[in-house]
Amino acid sequence: MHLNRVLAPDWHIAQWFNTDQSLHLSNLRGKVVILHAFQMLCPGCVIHGLPQTQKIYNTFDPNDVTIIGLHTVFEHHDVMTPQALDAFIHEYRYTFPIGVDQPGERLGIPMTMGIYGMRGTPSLIMIDHKGYIHKHSFGRDDDMKVGADIAMLISEAKADPVTLKGEYLNDNRCDQEKCKV
Amino acid sequence: MHLNRVLAPDWHIAQWFNTDQSLHLSNLRGKVVILHAFQMLCPGCVIHGLPQTQKIYNTFDPNDVTIIGLHTVFEHHDVMTPQALDAFIHEYRYTFPIGVDQPGERLGIPMTMGIYGMRGTPSLIMIDHKGYIHKHSFGRDDDMKVGADIAMLISEAKADPVTLKGEYLNDNRCDQEKCKV
Amino acid sequence: MHLNRVLAPDWHIAQWFNTDQSLHLSNLRGKVVILHAFQMLCPGCVIHGLPQTQKIYNTFDPNDVTIIGLHTVFEHHDVMTPQALDAFIHEYRYTFPIGVDQPGERLGIPMTMGIYGMRGTPSLIMIDHKGYIHKHSFGRDDDMKVGADIAMLISEAKADPVTLKGEYLNDNRCDQEKCKV
Amino acid sequence: MHLNRVLAPDWHIAQWFNTDQSLHLSNLRGKVVILHAFQMLCPGCVIHGLPQTQKIYNTFDPNDVTIIGLHTVFEHHDVMTPQALDAFIHEYRYTFPIGVDQPGERLGIPMTMGIYGMRGTPSLIMIDHKGYIHKHSFGRDDDMKVGADIAMLISEAKADPVTLKGEYLNDNRCDQEKCKV
Repeated sequence: MHLNRVLAPDWHIAQWFNTDQSLHLSNLRGKVVILHAFQMLCPGCVIHGLPQTQKIYNTFDPNDVTIIGLHTVFEHHDVMTPQALDAFIHEYRYTFPIGVDQPGERLGIPMTMGIYGMRGTPSLIMIDHKGYIHKHSFGRDDDMKVGADIAMLISEAKADPVTLKGEYLNDNRCDQEKCKV
Repeated sequence: MHLNRVLAPDWHIAQWFNTDQSLHLSNLRGKVVILHAFQMLCPGCVIHGLPQTQKIYNTFDPNDVTIIGLHTVFEHHDVMTPQALDAFIHEYRYTFPIGVDQPGERLGIPMTMGIYGMRGTPSLIMIDHKGYIHKHSFGRDDDMKVGADIAMLISEAKADPVTLKGEYLNDNRCDQEKCKV
Repeated sequence: MHLNRVLAPDWHIAQWFNTDQSLHLSNLRGKVVILHAFQMLCPGCVIHGLPQTQKIYNTFDPNDVTIIGLHTVFEHHDVMTPQALDAFIHEYRYTFPIGVDQPGERLGIPMTMGIYGMRGTPSLIMIDHKGYIHKHSFGRDDDMKVGADIAMLISEAKADPVTLKGEYLNDNRCDQEKCKV
Repeated sequence: MHLNRVLAPDWHIAQWFNTDQSLHLSNLRGKVVILHAFQMLCPGCVIHGLPQTQKIYNTFDPNDVTIIGLHTVFEHHDVMTPQALDAFIHEYRYTFPIGVDQPGERLGIPMTMGIYGMRGTPSLIMIDHKGYIHKHSFGRDDDMKVGADIAMLISEAKADPVTLKGEYLNDNRCDQEKCKV
């Protein structure tokens, strides 16, 4: 038992880019999952966060790690639309899957951003192969440390190949639709 | 007479940001004018061109040099709107005057971009105190060379203090409304 | 048996800096060892390699990884002396252990550089907890990839805690004095 | 009369690199002179100052500006020898003229460094076409500002073509051998 660990809730995506199929955390058991929350008009995301996320995507084996960009619009909602994001992704040539965080009901905070308790953008969340949150950072992360953290999580996953889906779901308070807090 | 020199035509601006009054080239005689053409979703503009333009604005005396950003939208017109530009300017904290290039009638090329024959974004145009185009570059420019070029133009302007507005306008084939090609 | 793997030979050090005691590969079994070969007058080492090595030293737990700088002087021997290196280390504030590679007998190639077959500087060599060479690169390496490689080696070491010194030495064709090729 | 301006004293060079003939300030009247004081084991010089000086050398017309590197060794005298500097210049591929500041008699401060009252390395000194010190900075300078300052000095020189050597020397309290303080 890891009493202090927090299970990552699934994300809520209104629209996907760079992927033909929806991605669900509950289907990614056994793999390391990297979630990069950004806004297309956030300078720190454009200068540091998104290039780093693309580098993660280019560096690691997709069989080991799933990279997901999450467009968590919490300001300037009227101009950071999915249509604008589409042009942004095209111009910056990002190739990793990106989901638009489902708009929230109050205060402009989108749903996944709210559920995860993110403080802003860019935020980087690392989820281990069992679905636990390993790291949740806000701001700029160092490339070497990020590379080391992800590789460590991959090693943990490879050392625990017998994790079964059923066990995972029981261990987890989330199903594919919702997470109990 | 400088037979090979080209007089800079005035720009055509649909909307201004970071300035209370419209800026016209014909009113800027005697000063060096720097025109930086960009698009808010152009990576080369965001990474290099716009930070360099802000640095020009921070480095030189506004009595000597007028810096103008020009939002020359020639693609993704539906999302690079003035409203989106407003949020972009706010988030990136640009403080120099920025004008939205007047939409053009064909092929999506805005008016000023077409008149100046720009090849794309970012483009940097340096205009001397008499209104002639000193330099017109496309792509990335070196900071030291840009600083040297502008200082040289300032020195030329200071060495020629007797230039009169009337002389300038006669010398120029542009009036405040249009430029004869 | 890992038939394709190469056992790392021990290094031959004329003088140590930043450590009170000599470091021997044969005493480092169970730990990951990072060997960074440089010359103090090599621009690629000063601009990229050495700062990266210092970052490795600052990022990883010394209980997991031993970082060693190796001054492999193969040119300008008369000025890249241990005395000059001492001043260099002081001015650049490197804190990881650095050894002066034992001068070689011919062609100016120092001993460890020759034994490892290094092509030049900077060279980065990663040695796993069993003493095998995991990676041997020449030139510039990406921080994220370096971080990932080291973390992976650390994970392998932690998953194999029962490696014994005797087994290690038998597995190895090197003793503390020499390595059989 | 420019009462507040300081005439640049001539430098005292023990040995030159990258030039076949000795350079004297008194022979450079009418030209802008850039003096970059550095030490080969000074990190700020290697990372910022020297690359910037090389860029100045590559950017400006040698008919307008003379660039001089000055090796002002005030520490680690035993290893920052002219012989070591020779290897350093070769490895970093600097192509501008570099002079070794004449060793001083006390405290290890070399002669030119002492006469100019430099605070350390890197120091950048800009001398106008009349031999006056225009700028004397210590530490890191911005490329755009440096480019602008040099271009402004070039413009001043070009606007004052009648400066004669005799006038210059009378105006100056230095002759080719010494400077009266």
